[in-house]
Amino acid sequence: MIKVGIVGGTGYTGVELLRLLAVHPDVKLTAITSRKEDGLPVADMFPSLRGRVDLAFSAPDKVDLKQCDVVFFATPHGVAMAQAPELLAAGVKVIDLAADFRLKDQASFEQWYKIPHTASHLLEEAVYGLPELNREAVKSALLIANPGCYPTTMQLGFVPLLKAGVIDAGSLIADAKSGVSGAGRKAEIGTLFSESSDNFKAYGVSGHRHTPETVAQLQRFTDQKVGLVFTPHLVPMIRGMHATLYARLTKDIDNAALQALFEEAYKDADFVDVMPFGSHPETRSTRGSNMLRLALHRPEQDGAPGNMVVILVVQDNLVKGASGQAVQCMNLMFGLPETTGLQQIALLP
Amino acid sequence: MIKVGIVGGTGYTGVELLRLLAVHPDVKLTAITSRKEDGLPVADMFPSLRGRVDLAFSAPDKVDLKQCDVVFFATPHGVAMAQAPELLAAGVKVIDLAADFRLKDQASFEQWYKIPHTASHLLEEAVYGLPELNREAVKSALLIANPGCYPTTMQLGFVPLLKAGVIDAGSLIADAKSGVSGAGRKAEIGTLFSESSDNFKAYGVSGHRHTPETVAQLQRFTDQKVGLVFTPHLVPMIRGMHATLYARLTKDIDNAALQALFEEAYKDADFVDVMPFGSHPETRSTRGSNMLRLALHRPEQDGAPGNMVVILVVQDNLVKGASGQAVQCMNLMFGLPETTGLQQIALLP
Amino acid sequence: MIKVGIVGGTGYTGVELLRLLAVHPDVKLTAITSRKEDGLPVADMFPSLRGRVDLAFSAPDKVDLKQCDVVFFATPHGVAMAQAPELLAAGVKVIDLAADFRLKDQASFEQWYKIPHTASHLLEEAVYGLPELNREAVKSALLIANPGCYPTTMQLGFVPLLKAGVIDAGSLIADAKSGVSGAGRKAEIGTLFSESSDNFKAYGVSGHRHTPETVAQLQRFTDQKVGLVFTPHLVPMIRGMHATLYARLTKDIDNAALQALFEEAYKDADFVDVMPFGSHPETRSTRGSNMLRLALHRPEQDGAPGNMVVILVVQDNLVKGASGQAVQCMNLMFGLPETTGLQQIALLP
Amino acid sequence: MIKVGIVGGTGYTGVELLRLLAVHPDVKLTAITSRKEDGLPVADMFPSLRGRVDLAFSAPDKVDLKQCDVVFFATPHGVAMAQAPELLAAGVKVIDLAADFRLKDQASFEQWYKIPHTASHLLEEAVYGLPELNREAVKSALLIANPGCYPTTMQLGFVPLLKAGVIDAGSLIADAKSGVSGAGRKAEIGTLFSESSDNFKAYGVSGHRHTPETVAQLQRFTDQKVGLVFTPHLVPMIRGMHATLYARLTKDIDNAALQALFEEAYKDADFVDVMPFGSHPETRSTRGSNMLRLALHRPEQDGAPGNMVVILVVQDNLVKGASGQAVQCMNLMFGLPETTGLQQIALLP
Repeated sequence: MIKVGIVGGTGYTGVELLRLLAVHPDVKLTAITSRKEDGLPVADMFPSLRGRVDLAFSAPDKVDLKQCDVVFFATPHGVAMAQAPELLAAGVKVIDLAADFRLKDQASFEQWYKIPHTASHLLEEAVYGLPELNREAVKSALLIANPGCYPTTMQLGFVPLLKAGVIDAGSLIADAKSGVSGAGRKAEIGTLFSESSDNFKAYGVSGHRHTPETVAQLQRFTDQKVGLVFTPHLVPMIRGMHATLYARLTKDIDNAALQALFEEAYKDADFVDVMPFGSHPETRSTRGSNMLRLALHRPEQDGAPGNMVVILVVQDNLVKGASGQAVQCMNLMFGLPETTGLQQIALLP
Repeated sequence: MIKVGIVGGTGYTGVELLRLLAVHPDVKLTAITSRKEDGLPVADMFPSLRGRVDLAFSAPDKVDLKQCDVVFFATPHGVAMAQAPELLAAGVKVIDLAADFRLKDQASFEQWYKIPHTASHLLEEAVYGLPELNREAVKSALLIANPGCYPTTMQLGFVPLLKAGVIDAGSLIADAKSGVSGAGRKAEIGTLFSESSDNFKAYGVSGHRHTPETVAQLQRFTDQKVGLVFTPHLVPMIRGMHATLYARLTKDIDNAALQALFEEAYKDADFVDVMPFGSHPETRSTRGSNMLRLALHRPEQDGAPGNMVVILVVQDNLVKGASGQAVQCMNLMFGLPETTGLQQIALLP
Repeated sequence: MIKVGIVGGTGYTGVELLRLLAVHPDVKLTAITSRKEDGLPVADMFPSLRGRVDLAFSAPDKVDLKQCDVVFFATPHGVAMAQAPELLAAGVKVIDLAADFRLKDQASFEQWYKIPHTASHLLEEAVYGLPELNREAVKSALLIANPGCYPTTMQLGFVPLLKAGVIDAGSLIADAKSGVSGAGRKAEIGTLFSESSDNFKAYGVSGHRHTPETVAQLQRFTDQKVGLVFTPHLVPMIRGMHATLYARLTKDIDNAALQALFEEAYKDADFVDVMPFGSHPETRSTRGSNMLRLALHRPEQDGAPGNMVVILVVQDNLVKGASGQAVQCMNLMFGLPETTGLQQIALLP
Repeated sequence: MIKVGIVGGTGYTGVELLRLLAVHPDVKLTAITSRKEDGLPVADMFPSLRGRVDLAFSAPDKVDLKQCDVVFFATPHGVAMAQAPELLAAGVKVIDLAADFRLKDQASFEQWYKIPHTASHLLEEAVYGLPELNREAVKSALLIANPGCYPTTMQLGFVPLLKAGVIDAGSLIADAKSGVSGAGRKAEIGTLFSESSDNFKAYGVSGHRHTPETVAQLQRFTDQKVGLVFTPHLVPMIRGMHATLYARLTKDIDNAALQALFEEAYKDADFVDVMPFGSHPETRSTRGSNMLRLALHRPEQDGAPGNMVVILVVQDNLVKGASGQAVQCMNLMFGLPETTGLQQIALLP
């Protein structure tokens, strides 16, 4: 059994890790820390876990995470970089669900996250935990930078086209929409029910932290210089992410060949479902599951296939976009089948 | 492996059966019928099942349900009564999620459901599938009448008090609230998003089919004559049911003793969670799971414990209130542990 | 023109006052205070008011509210009691939307609100601002205690029956459901979208501040001792309140006579709509309007009219349950037709 | 008083016309037709209108619409083209909220709407009812083709840039999101609450009727050939539309100059609010009002202003996107101030 520790279990990615790990056949939940909730049974905060998770939160100084085999950081940015070095030195693997190790470039990190990076020596070693694009590296990783939810959808949608060299990498557009849980379990007016329900808006249009992360990763797959306009929006739903991606075709390619690019790219990916050309994936088809679904469109212009390809991508932002992906990485790191404990079927309706 | 057939798999209880049975370790999904969707792969209608359920719908005359070990009817009222006799004669067990066999009294059935009962000879044999109150009978049942969602909450909430003889059975009040999925997957204006969202209303206040079912079942547990006012309401949420039950105490009993009545009644019930006295269970703590949670309150009057006990009961109307309970019955009927395949943890948030 | 000041305009009752008063033909918005937002244009916080309200928030010490004809307090409890005495002394009328003056009994106030009452000499003078039950007193009032949203629905639903002496006043039950905006515009985890959406729960079942307010008011209309069990619930909708009221009939009275009691009671009430017997009012039929709608039911027992009358009451908690009622009071206090500026039709769908 | 008739008042644009016209100071509601609901009081179907609209629905053959001054068609496509000729001949003005007269090109209409056009002689005469771009023509119009909700947002967002000649007209992208009420009040499974809530999806990505309408209108403002990729999505909210528009700049222009283009274009438009550069308009800031709000963004690329301008546009799809715009046209056609009866402030929260 893999002994698992969780740092910061009071947020949404934390409770989602608990939901997944509590039924994972190879995991023993060993410790979960929260400075503020020391002593509180986890199930008192999250009644959905009553009878299923017996742990209580521990203050960080009351528990020895070095006894774990792997520690997940479901914390705000800045926590993992402080604690990871000591854990890694003790032979504990680390999976960070925050941004501390997502950007290889320290200056870029500090520009976007406004804090100094105190463990920059680990940036090179950290493996970007997107198994579909990085599986072998994940398997041998000691430190995982788990991708954000937006970057996962953008990369899995654009990469097959970039690798094939059929689009203009310099004019990518990602119009993305997220459920409100993406904002986390924080007391803020902007994400109150009465502010977010029956409402729709964009945010961060002029600049968002997920842009440099995504551009840097996309750049790995093309020699062209990547240019990306990324527009996030807030949808009045709890879970779910929908990315509508636009790319300009630069090669003469028909729809069947486009579709084949994706089917080939993901033929071994258990968690990527390439739907038939022209489908409209719904976020709810992934609610609570680790699946990402995508479909291609080619809007006509003047009665002929146009030069724009539209890729629709959906996932559950808390599962494939966060905690499920982290467990997927853990499975690979410990030599388990990638799908272990991740076979939940989406809740529909 | 239990060979399972489903009649009428295009509704919400049908797709929920599929979600649960597709991961049930002892079940082989064998046939699913739909007159209208003959030949359509199930996963085309419900993309959440893509890659997980390979069956297609079959017209009823193209499949031999008698090859199954058990057949679930996830149909409107009237279908099970037409087909059950032949299946039972062939040795196939039957679990009806509709109302055909819930009322022992034929006249009452015909009054409330406005159709003649064509298999009234089976009414006596049918077992009411509420395992927590009827476990032994379910184990040996050949024909299960799976309870409705409202009756499940009302019975599990009232019965410990009725059995203890501490309340006035003649003045029960159940103020119940259901998510919209309880209305089924039917094209109707009243349950459109634009009609049901951001709205709340009662319905059927002057008389609802679940009243006679509940009264008849409650009557089994008391010598007093049961009187029940039942007020259903529609909540703008997909899944979930909340019953707020009011009973007038007729015995001098303190809160600890009340609590003990419930803890004792459900000490062997894996799917009933008696929360601490004074808790406020939330429907989401059961979303997608087969758990029912309840909690007791004793509002004060003039600074002393009043004579009214309030029982708050929550469940997922599609799971413990329908398909999960049906699978729970199946487990018992086939000698499996009651919780097999029903260990899903609620999706929160 | 009536010169109006608003203290505390950053909450939901504040912005709702602004929505109503900005189009009121006899009002001139003169000042709106907020200690925290001094200098911020109101329309920067609430873009719905862009081009319609030119005021900026002022710190309390930068504006002389004594120049106003009337001041509304859309503040937390405790603010109005501090400022009202000086305003009243200066001849300014005061309408408090909080609880400071709702309870005549100082001890009861201090028990439920946990703060000392610093203006208890005004408790007797304050007029309870429920025009339908108190119109004449409101007309001549200098200080209005505007009722809470729950108490408004409970009183308008129960009073005609209490006055007629046809029910048992000692066993009233109010099962009430509120939209989330009732919790105010405060950064709290419990009312985040991700916590409140797709969810339903009760709260404060063992004791709620609105119980003593309601009991005290109901007591004015009956010689029997009033006993009330009040159970509030949170509905995943922004606006709207639905009360389901239960009263036990003690007199032999038929349904037409019950209906007549309500029609007579509200025949002059422009904002109370007595719907046909057996109707199911929906909250959305009042969304954004100052209307309260109600309907009576008499569930059958054993095929005959039972002894329980069920009253369904709906309103918009921010309008008739708060700011609209406050404007209605203002109209009466200044000799205007009661409906002035309050003719908005509900937004449906 | 303008005598107004409404054909087809049982849908959402119909009831929204009633909400607006019932309080319009210069209108007398004279007739409202529905073949199916003949004799039913309008307020029985829409309780929000109780006490405010006394009309009953009339079968079309029981009422003489030629007595009206103006008739609104809130009907499916095909109805107005059948009845408009006779009304126009009788001197009655006609405002069609459906698509019958939106496309000047008959072949295009018949291709997209799959029905023959039986009044094609009126296509030339019909005036496209988008006052901000077409005010003078609307004033003298006898027959108005009221624009669809998507085309309104796209045109008001793109036209100032097209007219200024600063963008590539051939590569416009409109990623648009609509509340569910845009699908109308029709019994369909896809728009049930349980299907649409807590969900997000695109639809019609490969081709939508609003594309040719929008392209044809945009073409009026540029000599370049217009090319548009339009992607509609369904948002789980009742009302509201958000268009995220992308245009590639072809001229060197700074942000202040971009902003000035819009402020100049709409300086006389009472219902278009050009927000400060970089704002994020929310749909709820227009809920129930006739306002359209927009804001410009210029995402950076490599630390400098990029070559893409992003225009965010919001409106209430049932008001400015349908019935409010129709009333705005009526005001102009009858010489009234454009804002008469359209001063409702958005409902927030």
